[in-house]
Amino acid sequence: MKTLLKNAKIVNVFTDSLMDADVLIEDDKIIGLGDYSDTNADICEDLKGKYICPGFIDGHIHIESTMMTPYELSKAVLPCGTTSIVADPHEIANVCGTDGIKYIIEASEGLPLKVYIMLPSCVPATPFDESGCVLKAEDLKPFYKEKRVLGLAEMMNYPGAISGDLDILNKIKDAFDNNKVVDGHAPLLTGHGLDAYISRGIQSDHECSSYEEGKERISKGQWLMVREGTAAKNLLNMIDLLDEPFSRRCVLVTDDKHPADILRDGHIDHIIRLAVKNGKSVFTAIRVATIQAANCFGLKYTGAVAPGYKADLLVLNNLEEIDIKDVYSEGKKVVENKKLKEYDKPSISKQLVNKVTNSFFIDKLTEKDFILSKEANKCRVIKTIKGQLLTDEWITEMNFETSNGIDLERDILKIAVLERHHNTGHKGIGFINGIGLKEGAIACSVSHDSHNLIVIGSNEADMACVANAIIEMGGGCAAAKNGKIVSSLPLPIAGLMSEDDASLLAEKNHVLREAIYELGVPRTIAPLMTMAFVSLAVIPSLKLITTGLFDVNSFSPTDLFVK
Amino acid sequence: MKTLLKNAKIVNVFTDSLMDADVLIEDDKIIGLGDYSDTNADICEDLKGKYICPGFIDGHIHIESTMMTPYELSKAVLPCGTTSIVADPHEIANVCGTDGIKYIIEASEGLPLKVYIMLPSCVPATPFDESGCVLKAEDLKPFYKEKRVLGLAEMMNYPGAISGDLDILNKIKDAFDNNKVVDGHAPLLTGHGLDAYISRGIQSDHECSSYEEGKERISKGQWLMVREGTAAKNLLNMIDLLDEPFSRRCVLVTDDKHPADILRDGHIDHIIRLAVKNGKSVFTAIRVATIQAANCFGLKYTGAVAPGYKADLLVLNNLEEIDIKDVYSEGKKVVENKKLKEYDKPSISKQLVNKVTNSFFIDKLTEKDFILSKEANKCRVIKTIKGQLLTDEWITEMNFETSNGIDLERDILKIAVLERHHNTGHKGIGFINGIGLKEGAIACSVSHDSHNLIVIGSNEADMACVANAIIEMGGGCAAAKNGKIVSSLPLPIAGLMSEDDASLLAEKNHVLREAIYELGVPRTIAPLMTMAFVSLAVIPSLKLITTGLFDVNSFSPTDLFVK
Repeated sequence: MKTLLKNAKIVNVFTDSLMDADVLIEDDKIIGLGDYSDTNADICEDLKGKYICPGFIDGHIHIESTMMTPYELSKAVLPCGTTSIVADPHEIANVCGTDGIKYIIEASEGLPLKVYIMLPSCVPATPFDESGCVLKAEDLKPFYKEKRVLGLAEMMNYPGAISGDLDILNKIKDAFDNNKVVDGHAPLLTGHGLDAYISRGIQSDHECSSYEEGKERISKGQWLMVREGTAAKNLLNMIDLLDEPFSRRCVLVTDDKHPADILRDGHIDHIIRLAVKNGKSVFTAIRVATIQAANCFGLKYTGAVAPGYKADLLVLNNLEEIDIKDVYSEGKKVVENKKLKEYDKPSISKQLVNKVTNSFFIDKLTEKDFILSKEANKCRVIKTIKGQLLTDEWITEMNFETSNGIDLERDILKIAVLERHHNTGHKGIGFINGIGLKEGAIACSVSHDSHNLIVIGSNEADMACVANAIIEMGGGCAAAKNGKIVSSLPLPIAGLMSEDDASLLAEKNHVLREAIYELGVPRTIAPLMTMAFVSLAVIPSLKLITTGLFDVNSFSPTDLFVK
Repeated sequence: MKTLLKNAKIVNVFTDSLMDADVLIEDDKIIGLGDYSDTNADICEDLKGKYICPGFIDGHIHIESTMMTPYELSKAVLPCGTTSIVADPHEIANVCGTDGIKYIIEASEGLPLKVYIMLPSCVPATPFDESGCVLKAEDLKPFYKEKRVLGLAEMMNYPGAISGDLDILNKIKDAFDNNKVVDGHAPLLTGHGLDAYISRGIQSDHECSSYEEGKERISKGQWLMVREGTAAKNLLNMIDLLDEPFSRRCVLVTDDKHPADILRDGHIDHIIRLAVKNGKSVFTAIRVATIQAANCFGLKYTGAVAPGYKADLLVLNNLEEIDIKDVYSEGKKVVENKKLKEYDKPSISKQLVNKVTNSFFIDKLTEKDFILSKEANKCRVIKTIKGQLLTDEWITEMNFETSNGIDLERDILKIAVLERHHNTGHKGIGFINGIGLKEGAIACSVSHDSHNLIVIGSNEADMACVANAIIEMGGGCAAAKNGKIVSSLPLPIAGLMSEDDASLLAEKNHVLREAIYELGVPRTIAPLMTMAFVSLAVIPSLKLITTGLFDVNSFSPTDLFVK
């Protein structure tokens, strides 16, 4: 089966230039680049001077953060020109362990979006976390037999990597023994510490947020994954690293991006447009998003329009704006005139579906479950910082007499993190400032990285109500007021994802957010996002986990009451 | 064991710039790059501003062409800064088959020069060749288990690759199935033919000789191996491909280089110097010769001075002239102040030594063996072209009355190619013009690619004399006059290589060449080189093989006598 695309301007990622040529495709592979005007092909299309560039590659993404299944994600990003993603199923692995990884592998099998997998390196994120599973080196090792597994994902435990934690060294060794790569995650690490970390064989980082930080990484041989997602937007701070010689070692990634943002702005195409709009070469931006991502992961014959390469390519109406008309995946047209063609949903074994859709093990809750017995007058309150995942510790006098410590005037709300994987009944209860809820309660099962049930409320009755709603849905986010659910977003797959498509998810998410704003949260705050990171015990300073308050700076539990 | 190299200027191949830093090495690996002045190390050296760059990599070399064993070659090129070579044992495989490959692997085991192997793809070079062995896909396949085997070497049979010859496709498939690469060899191939050839997965070419040819290869995704050896010197014709963006896809190689040239000019360092002398950036040239060669072959953590990388590095007194003071191989100083340190010769199993040193199977010859019975007056004479491997066909009236066709006035000498692998008695006899011998005879067992015994003479008696000398030596080159050997260069390993070191080989080669010039050959001619390629039936036009004259243009045998 031969396809001939005639009269195109090819974006050549090897020469950073345009090339007038026809492209001849046989089955899934490009076999000709040049004048093929006299060649017979089964399908022949005259592109009349339109552009062809390679399909884009997202070098690091958590599918779970899009809340979509791989199938729905593929439908959302293929029209954006993304033909390959490198996914780290870290979130679902924290809930479902190796079954979570298997689910992502099966749920992405045979999609026109190629889904490569990096194995989650740090499940759970800290030894204090109560996650659904603990993944040791021996749990990950069998996955290296899977064709689409490219290596070990972001090594977040950089102190462990540096000091030589045995399980971490084993995980890295297994990756290398299988000729795979190891990605990094070490924000702000520099100098000797960085050298020691990189020396373990950590090839990349996507957590850099400044030019100097990015430059140091490149100088020391790492691939710099320039991230532009929903919360973390690093491109503009590092944009001059898309100039020579640094651009040679850059890759583009989204990491975490919500469906509404994908629908509105795009995916990797959005990062390219942003780079071009800010004065960078479109050839560089495309090269970084294609052949370099492929090189970073050792993906052969991917990421270029050249003989022998996989026919993953885009037809563009316009180069600078990355106006994508058609998308080819392995030689098949999957997007035509911006319209996605239909394709089959991967079939997933029942056992895995059962596992990921039954991930909630927690008894129904009552108002009493959220009541604290006062031990002192002063408490440590988690003080959120607008637009950041960082929090501060705020020690203040509480009023336990009238409302169990909740103080709406000073914006002190109650927060609870409830273990939901093994029905241990473990729960952490505390107080939070900076959310702005005036009535009702909100809750979510997306709570990094262990994804226990997190609830914030203005009163305990609504907290129990909204928590029970989420338990009933088998996961998701919701808001309650006066004992009634006012809006909800079910995420029945591991409590993280839904079968809904991007539009429906974006819409439900929008409705829920509006409902939360109705409860008094100021529009300057992203309540769900903020809530989802309050339990992440690796971002300073004060966090809440299932066993209570956690002081990230001293990396140890701390008391709620200050006696 | 830690080594600290302080106060160096690091050539950073990721940023094309110098970086003031200390380099901290632990065992075989770089673990620090920056300010380590306060660090304790077992060995500490203050480089006082000298330069450090990564060790050089020769991306394509035939060790046999240096006539040295891997051990002696390592001694010759380590002081030139070459710490890794990618060798294609094509010549010895033509003589000894898989035992030849095994010999090269064993003879290079544990050397401070890392010898990587590409498996010879085309043994014999043509179906008309009578080589020592025929290597099919199944013969090569087991070698992919060897750690140092990186892939399949130069695919010279490009018509076969294009048309889809089954054995060739199997060889390529085996390389890919083992996650290895396939190098190319397709001089002047362009357009559709080139596309079809590259589409098979051929990743590189080292036979390009012009800017346009090289540029097409790069545009189509191949690595361009810029070659500068003894006979083939391609750098200057393609030097502008060492500018951006093309340089990103270049690698430096020597392919075939004689010991005298290595001793006089250097190795990869010579190519870098030549590039710099001709106006190219020293950073680009070093990058091309280091990290890019590593990337081309998927060699991880090789080719840069960065944390986690193998400590293969050079200390330079001067950057532009690549004045190499010290050489480190995997953290060990192997060259100090330009002086090589001693290291062990690899031990080779007796069976292999026996095999490669007993590669001559041909009975003693007499004058009569070189006499032709006249079938017509006119003959096809091989007409050599000065400075080229190409030959012309010259049809001329012969004088068989007085000297069996030999005509010294018209420089028509007798030439014979004698099968020497299986004692078949096969021989091709013909005439050659352009050598200039006035008396005596010369002979050699280096005769591409099958390495049969080739003899050129002014009379049959000396031809028999010199041929028998080579048979007695078990291989080599020699000159005879009046029934006596006047000079000889024994090459007892497969008839291609010697245990001598570079100086001794260069000296013996020099003495032999002088002796040949004494026999009347003009000094403008390289007699041994010319002789070695007269039997290579893939370079046009008229060649002599063991079965007689061969017309390369029609790719078929042809008659000596024109009736």
